[in-house]
Amino acid sequence: MNVGIYGASGYVGGELLRLLLQHPKVTVSAVTSNTYAGEYVFRVHPNLRGETNLKFEKPDISSLTDKCDIIFLSTPHGVSSTIVPEIYDSGVKIIDMSADFRLKNADDYPKWYGWSHRSPELLEKAVYGLPELHRDDIRRANLVACPGCMAASAILALAPIIQTGKVEKNHIIVDTKVGSSGAGSKPTLSSHHSEHYSVVRPYKPVGHRHTAEIEQELSAIIKDEVKISLSAHSVNMVRGILATCHVFLTEPINPVDVWRIYRGSYGDEPFIRLVRDRRGVFRYPDPKIVTGTNYCDIGFEVDRNTNRLVVLSAIDNLMKGAAGTAVQDMNLMLGFDESEGLKGIGLHPV
Amino acid sequence: MNVGIYGASGYVGGELLRLLLQHPKVTVSAVTSNTYAGEYVFRVHPNLRGETNLKFEKPDISSLTDKCDIIFLSTPHGVSSTIVPEIYDSGVKIIDMSADFRLKNADDYPKWYGWSHRSPELLEKAVYGLPELHRDDIRRANLVACPGCMAASAILALAPIIQTGKVEKNHIIVDTKVGSSGAGSKPTLSSHHSEHYSVVRPYKPVGHRHTAEIEQELSAIIKDEVKISLSAHSVNMVRGILATCHVFLTEPINPVDVWRIYRGSYGDEPFIRLVRDRRGVFRYPDPKIVTGTNYCDIGFEVDRNTNRLVVLSAIDNLMKGAAGTAVQDMNLMLGFDESEGLKGIGLHPV
Amino acid sequence: MNVGIYGASGYVGGELLRLLLQHPKVTVSAVTSNTYAGEYVFRVHPNLRGETNLKFEKPDISSLTDKCDIIFLSTPHGVSSTIVPEIYDSGVKIIDMSADFRLKNADDYPKWYGWSHRSPELLEKAVYGLPELHRDDIRRANLVACPGCMAASAILALAPIIQTGKVEKNHIIVDTKVGSSGAGSKPTLSSHHSEHYSVVRPYKPVGHRHTAEIEQELSAIIKDEVKISLSAHSVNMVRGILATCHVFLTEPINPVDVWRIYRGSYGDEPFIRLVRDRRGVFRYPDPKIVTGTNYCDIGFEVDRNTNRLVVLSAIDNLMKGAAGTAVQDMNLMLGFDESEGLKGIGLHPV
Amino acid sequence: MNVGIYGASGYVGGELLRLLLQHPKVTVSAVTSNTYAGEYVFRVHPNLRGETNLKFEKPDISSLTDKCDIIFLSTPHGVSSTIVPEIYDSGVKIIDMSADFRLKNADDYPKWYGWSHRSPELLEKAVYGLPELHRDDIRRANLVACPGCMAASAILALAPIIQTGKVEKNHIIVDTKVGSSGAGSKPTLSSHHSEHYSVVRPYKPVGHRHTAEIEQELSAIIKDEVKISLSAHSVNMVRGILATCHVFLTEPINPVDVWRIYRGSYGDEPFIRLVRDRRGVFRYPDPKIVTGTNYCDIGFEVDRNTNRLVVLSAIDNLMKGAAGTAVQDMNLMLGFDESEGLKGIGLHPV
Repeated sequence: MNVGIYGASGYVGGELLRLLLQHPKVTVSAVTSNTYAGEYVFRVHPNLRGETNLKFEKPDISSLTDKCDIIFLSTPHGVSSTIVPEIYDSGVKIIDMSADFRLKNADDYPKWYGWSHRSPELLEKAVYGLPELHRDDIRRANLVACPGCMAASAILALAPIIQTGKVEKNHIIVDTKVGSSGAGSKPTLSSHHSEHYSVVRPYKPVGHRHTAEIEQELSAIIKDEVKISLSAHSVNMVRGILATCHVFLTEPINPVDVWRIYRGSYGDEPFIRLVRDRRGVFRYPDPKIVTGTNYCDIGFEVDRNTNRLVVLSAIDNLMKGAAGTAVQDMNLMLGFDESEGLKGIGLHPV
Repeated sequence: MNVGIYGASGYVGGELLRLLLQHPKVTVSAVTSNTYAGEYVFRVHPNLRGETNLKFEKPDISSLTDKCDIIFLSTPHGVSSTIVPEIYDSGVKIIDMSADFRLKNADDYPKWYGWSHRSPELLEKAVYGLPELHRDDIRRANLVACPGCMAASAILALAPIIQTGKVEKNHIIVDTKVGSSGAGSKPTLSSHHSEHYSVVRPYKPVGHRHTAEIEQELSAIIKDEVKISLSAHSVNMVRGILATCHVFLTEPINPVDVWRIYRGSYGDEPFIRLVRDRRGVFRYPDPKIVTGTNYCDIGFEVDRNTNRLVVLSAIDNLMKGAAGTAVQDMNLMLGFDESEGLKGIGLHPV
Repeated sequence: MNVGIYGASGYVGGELLRLLLQHPKVTVSAVTSNTYAGEYVFRVHPNLRGETNLKFEKPDISSLTDKCDIIFLSTPHGVSSTIVPEIYDSGVKIIDMSADFRLKNADDYPKWYGWSHRSPELLEKAVYGLPELHRDDIRRANLVACPGCMAASAILALAPIIQTGKVEKNHIIVDTKVGSSGAGSKPTLSSHHSEHYSVVRPYKPVGHRHTAEIEQELSAIIKDEVKISLSAHSVNMVRGILATCHVFLTEPINPVDVWRIYRGSYGDEPFIRLVRDRRGVFRYPDPKIVTGTNYCDIGFEVDRNTNRLVVLSAIDNLMKGAAGTAVQDMNLMLGFDESEGLKGIGLHPV
Repeated sequence: MNVGIYGASGYVGGELLRLLLQHPKVTVSAVTSNTYAGEYVFRVHPNLRGETNLKFEKPDISSLTDKCDIIFLSTPHGVSSTIVPEIYDSGVKIIDMSADFRLKNADDYPKWYGWSHRSPELLEKAVYGLPELHRDDIRRANLVACPGCMAASAILALAPIIQTGKVEKNHIIVDTKVGSSGAGSKPTLSSHHSEHYSVVRPYKPVGHRHTAEIEQELSAIIKDEVKISLSAHSVNMVRGILATCHVFLTEPINPVDVWRIYRGSYGDEPFIRLVRDRRGVFRYPDPKIVTGTNYCDIGFEVDRNTNRLVVLSAIDNLMKGAAGTAVQDMNLMLGFDESEGLKGIGLHPV
């Protein structure tokens, strides 16, 4: 199968390349970049030196649809919705890494993103690409919207306990800690090493746009409105997200029962590991431990003092939070083994 | 005035030394260490090389009380309560850095610390050493219990809004991010650089012992029980705490009113800065910016989506979270200017 | 083929496990640890959670030689030389990660390591396991001594230019910068995060023991004595070594000729990449870029001001500096493709 | 005395502000910035929040010379030489932080900096502002050129041993490791946190421009040409330089004699600490330990294997490498105590 990446010079594009170049069932036929057209990809993604002689080419949709069976769109929010219709009509499958097709309700775009959607008719055709929630729909989809990185970590952490219906739906707090690669590859004062080193920067304490997709997905589970209080912090690491989800329960719950709930939801999932040791440095999820892998590590504790459940989930934002889930989606859409190309063991220590 | 430090080989002891050696009104007369007795302090605290020829001496209480007008105790929890009575009886003033005299209710020690208090009669004599709450009591005190670092950041963030009475008292979440120096100077696998670098490690998601003093102090403000849901994370920096406090309000509030409330509480405080710019990388508190200073930077945002107030507070755990507040307490107890020895401007970038 | 790891609880042991568990041609039959016998390996190496149910077992040589075709020894210096004879006599192949069989001259052990060698007769049987220098010997060897991490990076950087004979043999400086994982997994004050964060610590400015093997290997190339001035620094990263090799030339040389020399030596090497772009952030070798891979990236510059050649080489100390080269050696010894199990593309950014 | 800073929005400007605002003998009368004119300085230098209400003003030389007794120029290389003549003629004293007046020989500017000097007649009036070498000249100077950060660390490390005449003058290697603040406050791909975290980036292996001033100053000491082989690396920290200086000796030397030589040169220097403990983590200079201070820590080892002396020097590049030395120069020029405003004890750990 031939795959293309539209917009491959950023960190998500680079991570897609890393995965797809090693994937045994696909060939990377085209990667585009306006800025770097004509340049070897390894000049931009130095880890690819010696691995490929691929070059960036100018974006040209008809050329891409001719060459590819499936196209990943790794473009800024608001851009892919202008491109997707043409690709969609060509019959080529699409995995969109942006937010443009994640929300079902067109009205949510002006509200959360500040612009009106240009192809609202495609929103219902798009599938929210979180395999753990929508595996069968993804298999049948032609257009998949890959979840936001913070949304992926929060939804996976919360879905099983939300499903029990025993949660105070308006007091759910998601406190996330994100590595610098989450802000992309473009230098800014905020990402300047001297300014970012050692920070714990609460860059979005309220109003983060991933709130919309988290509320959408969790509300759908119980067919009732769930409100999410999301706060995002940037910390001194490159890859990774830890989502600390604080949930108040409507009745006391035992750790053993929480374990059963999560085991029931995720026992067969290839990329979710439940982490709950009694002791040791590695007894809770930590993004450090999933670096470079597609795992979402999930753990929890019950706080009897306040009848609170703390669910912790750790992902690599470029993997399970972006390129890894996208390849997992591709595997489902193309009928491959779901884990194909995603089995590499992570590094430790790193 | 002559001061002594009982247990001066750890990071808090070292920071006390740094401050006291530069303090214009006091002389460091004695510093003790069992392990390093006879050794120059600069062998253990390398920043003191060339600054002092002081040596550690064996701990000996009567020698200390002879030489000192005030003694800082920087000993492990459970130890200072065995020493304090003798010093207290000698009339020498005491600032205890441990948790042994922070809680008013002796029953809280078995509950949170796992041991019964040996000198419960002194608990009522001790003053909780947070100047912003107990300035006058500290002035008159002979025994001050310096607040825990995480407690200090949380209490300062929450006190003003708690005082309004418009907070859901059972849904208060304090999500803290702490630098490695908070765990002390003793090497462990958890603090091993290869294991601590790049972490976001949720080392105490529930049951953190500072919960007790936060609940005590905030409950006292409104004379009603306040419950705190505290979760502590260790991150990849050395100094600093960011406390992200998520509070649900019983009625909507405007940012301008929140500003007035905090300005009203802290407008005259020498070591609290309200940080609220409209834009820019430095628009919120960040522990990076208070490194080496006694400031507690406080900022906030209102989340209309969930009627949530997020209060952010940033401190240097060794300064406002320990040695800085202790010296501020000392200044009050000895009648000095409250800011004496604490005015050094912080470093940026660092 | 069945492989065993004697001493698998450290970082090199963990990295061997990561590689061997993914290797298509071998099965890990036994891993030993005195401390962790009976424990799942993923409790010690958290990246292996969900990847294997292997447990550590007590070290027992006859049990190991029964089960394994080849054994990796990942034990402290001075220990493997007490074990190797028994394994060697059993006919099972050995790859020793320690320094015990790297030096040809038994007299070098008292000089550099401070102890007399217990099995000097095996020294001539052992092959120095750097495939780029001794590929054919490694193929035929039963006992391979895997190079020291700093030695590997220095030898690979210097061998081609030494071979020209145009180098001042007594003025060769190797200034290395090493990540914290190079010091192993045992916590010490030196590795304590608060003490190691932000350091550039010149922990061994002179007298580093790897000097011996670098001098041995480079002297052998030109059958003349080469002296090495090695200085080792520890820096704030986990994985990686950068060796900055400063060489004074006996006659001026053009960059193009240097390029031809290195291309001639390494043009066909699967794990050496020559890095020499005209511009860009990635124009020189940097350990960050080889993280998790078996590459040695080599670059250089000519300093006309002092007739100096600077050769830069970057490796991952746990990979090309230890486990990666060891697996490369194993592939040669067992007749596999030399790159088998070592082809994973590195992460960027990380 | 009134001081001004021309170009105060960068990191050196910010550090000058930090020092001068705390200096007991001067008042900061004006700080300029083209970009930030009209803005509070604390918006750019967040550590100054609550410390000053100073604002940036547009650069205007006559306004500055009216208000100030001494002016610091913190402008890019090539700019200050266009401004200095006018200020110089006004009689106001100048401390130039750029390279424009460091070199005595006007021909060195085209060679090392690529432009011809516009005010070559002022080069002989300028004093190279390293107090340890030119204290008396600085006292009398009206124009002082503050040394480059890498030059300062290298010259201080090498001057005493060069002075003995027992050094191979053409085989001196200075291998430096620099924090990210050394590259300034402007974001670039190279300084982007995701690209700079964990690096050991040899960004200037040959041809660094500070070579010129190091050779100038060391040659002047022995009135003979000294050649310097400088290689600069960027590492994962914000502040600090470690210079590892490798020197081959013309005859063997004992450590005790080296100690005497350095003690003789620097025994009375207020900002040089000789660091030479027999054991311990802090036995060598490390930039981590001098963070925020004006110290240059110097240590050494003798390598008998190659008759090499390794001299290590550690400074904070923004302090002893820039603003700290500049204030030390100012103190000399204005007749203050040389250490005034520079006595703050450094932080540990940080």
